[in-house]
Amino acid sequence: MQSFYPPVRTLMGPGPSDVHPRVLSAMARPTIGHLDPAFVSMMDETKKALQYVFKTENELTMPVSAPGSAGMETCFANLVEPGDKVIVCINGVFGMRMKENVTRFGGNAVVVEDNWGDPVSATRLEDALKDNPDASIVAFVHAETSTGALSDAKTLCKVARKYNCITIVDAVTSLGGVELLVDEWEIDAIYSGSQKCLSAMPGISPISFGERAVAKLSKRKTPVTSWFLDLTLVMGYWGEGAKRSYHHTAPVNTLYGLHESLLMIREEGIENSWLRHQQNHQKLRDGLESMGIKFLVKAESRLPQLNTVIIPDGIDDADVRNRLLNEYNLEIGAGLGAYAGKVWRIGLMGYASRNENVTLCLSALNYVLRK
Amino acid sequence: MQSFYPPVRTLMGPGPSDVHPRVLSAMARPTIGHLDPAFVSMMDETKKALQYVFKTENELTMPVSAPGSAGMETCFANLVEPGDKVIVCINGVFGMRMKENVTRFGGNAVVVEDNWGDPVSATRLEDALKDNPDASIVAFVHAETSTGALSDAKTLCKVARKYNCITIVDAVTSLGGVELLVDEWEIDAIYSGSQKCLSAMPGISPISFGERAVAKLSKRKTPVTSWFLDLTLVMGYWGEGAKRSYHHTAPVNTLYGLHESLLMIREEGIENSWLRHQQNHQKLRDGLESMGIKFLVKAESRLPQLNTVIIPDGIDDADVRNRLLNEYNLEIGAGLGAYAGKVWRIGLMGYASRNENVTLCLSALNYVLRK
Repeated sequence: MQSFYPPVRTLMGPGPSDVHPRVLSAMARPTIGHLDPAFVSMMDETKKALQYVFKTENELTMPVSAPGSAGMETCFANLVEPGDKVIVCINGVFGMRMKENVTRFGGNAVVVEDNWGDPVSATRLEDALKDNPDASIVAFVHAETSTGALSDAKTLCKVARKYNCITIVDAVTSLGGVELLVDEWEIDAIYSGSQKCLSAMPGISPISFGERAVAKLSKRKTPVTSWFLDLTLVMGYWGEGAKRSYHHTAPVNTLYGLHESLLMIREEGIENSWLRHQQNHQKLRDGLESMGIKFLVKAESRLPQLNTVIIPDGIDDADVRNRLLNEYNLEIGAGLGAYAGKVWRIGLMGYASRNENVTLCLSALNYVLRK
Repeated sequence: MQSFYPPVRTLMGPGPSDVHPRVLSAMARPTIGHLDPAFVSMMDETKKALQYVFKTENELTMPVSAPGSAGMETCFANLVEPGDKVIVCINGVFGMRMKENVTRFGGNAVVVEDNWGDPVSATRLEDALKDNPDASIVAFVHAETSTGALSDAKTLCKVARKYNCITIVDAVTSLGGVELLVDEWEIDAIYSGSQKCLSAMPGISPISFGERAVAKLSKRKTPVTSWFLDLTLVMGYWGEGAKRSYHHTAPVNTLYGLHESLLMIREEGIENSWLRHQQNHQKLRDGLESMGIKFLVKAESRLPQLNTVIIPDGIDDADVRNRLLNEYNLEIGAGLGAYAGKVWRIGLMGYASRNENVTLCLSALNYVLRK
């Protein structure tokens, strides 16, 4: 056993994406106590910066001390009570995971299905809401990481609200990469990840709960099953004006990294970050199409930060990905679930969304596909 | 908002403790994919090194991707089914948290109480087991972080086994600091933390499950409530001979840090680490006693890595801790729960367990208490 020196890769898969050197450097700063006054000021800044990227004034906006899957679980664990009827829109792997969360917490999941690669259909959602007037929650994925499809979160939230449902929105891959306006779109509960368009290391999950979600949480008849994710307790540490009382030990160095990554987005401006993702996507798309490679998702609902393309006939999926990794230190993503072996997922997320990465990816792929 | 440069502290509280510069440096290495072949080899080494520090050959030995509280929750979420009777030994804050876990997962908790500061009584445990022949699990804390008391895990496990119960043991503060022999003592399920005697950054929780715990898990009639912590799924990524199939995105850089910290314990030798903690404790104890400061815990069950001392009469708790922090950049811990304001918790954990730290702490405390 020796010290581990990882190879230096260019990460253009579905995440983790390239972490900016400023973030890596922040991670290595000396650890201090999670109740240290200096740390508490840093927490306050982090909360404000998260409100900025989420475009929200929600007080309950904070990072969960675990990866995106735990962010998802935080939303469902706190908001779903046994017997609650939840409309779950499924158009890929992460919608399925949402359904799994609902049933494990004793909820009654009603599924609205769309083809993998299509966005969630607002019409089908509205039909399901008409058929299930007792539903109290609508859950959907804004940016489906398994397919690269972007759903119209604004419209879906409007439909949910018309039927008096609160919304739980997965923004793991969307936050920082495409327009996302939590307050304007009236999203009630949302979770994301650090390792996608925020250019930070994996392991932490920003969440935000609006007033209606907090009201549902405070009216619970049963305690939240998870002690670790119980927001009524976590907020004693992270809450506005809270006493920062001990709940669990925060992942101090990971929070240094998140703080630095959020600072960088503030410096760039969130709207500029969305624009950069769109511009680099267009360059990549033009290059891929000129090589005859087709996209899985229709142009109007394509995620700029996650380009899912169909593997050309006669091409060996694993062989191409291995060669890109071994010859170019370039990671692109495999297909997930039903699309395993059928698509590649090429990420241009956060710090990885750069002109030089687009060029490297196109050139390397072109070379590997020809030889 | 600016980049955050933390003050450089000496961390002698109940954790996080000082992180070794080698670990901090490892954290800043470039992020790679969580399915990258290079990462997968590093995972294998980490598992082996965790088996070494736990003194176990348990196949199911791995780090949970979240802090120690989530390690606790992993044990209870996977092993407690609704209706299970669990004997919970409480002699401090973390025993209470165990009880909270049991009831939230639908278990029936039978409490065995000892005074805070005392170890768990094997006699009282045996009485409870006689009174509750239908109990299937015994849970206790090896090293109570709230009081600094060490319990006799070997004897407690023997008693539990006599009554056919499996054991869940909290080793958050004990792992690396005092003798802990998972296989020899026949501990069935155990969890720990990275930020105590392992000298790593907070945010990750090593666990180990033995055969009897795995058997109980595999016979569950209901699914584990938590998708994120469901070991039957997590093991598809971390398991022996597993396909490393995607479950959640591992906290890559934090795992670099854990790997480096485990390598350092292998270099030192785990027995030498226990000895170092004992020796530094003795120096600190002698110094504190010569200042007239008394320990909360009786000599025979004192944790060397966490020295809980009674705040002398007429001394302002917060004032002393603030002065140590502001004048000496030295963090010591406040009392928790019933001991808030009554004790200090002085940690000598992992990299913080050094001769120079003992000297700094004694001198600084002596100065502050006199002026």
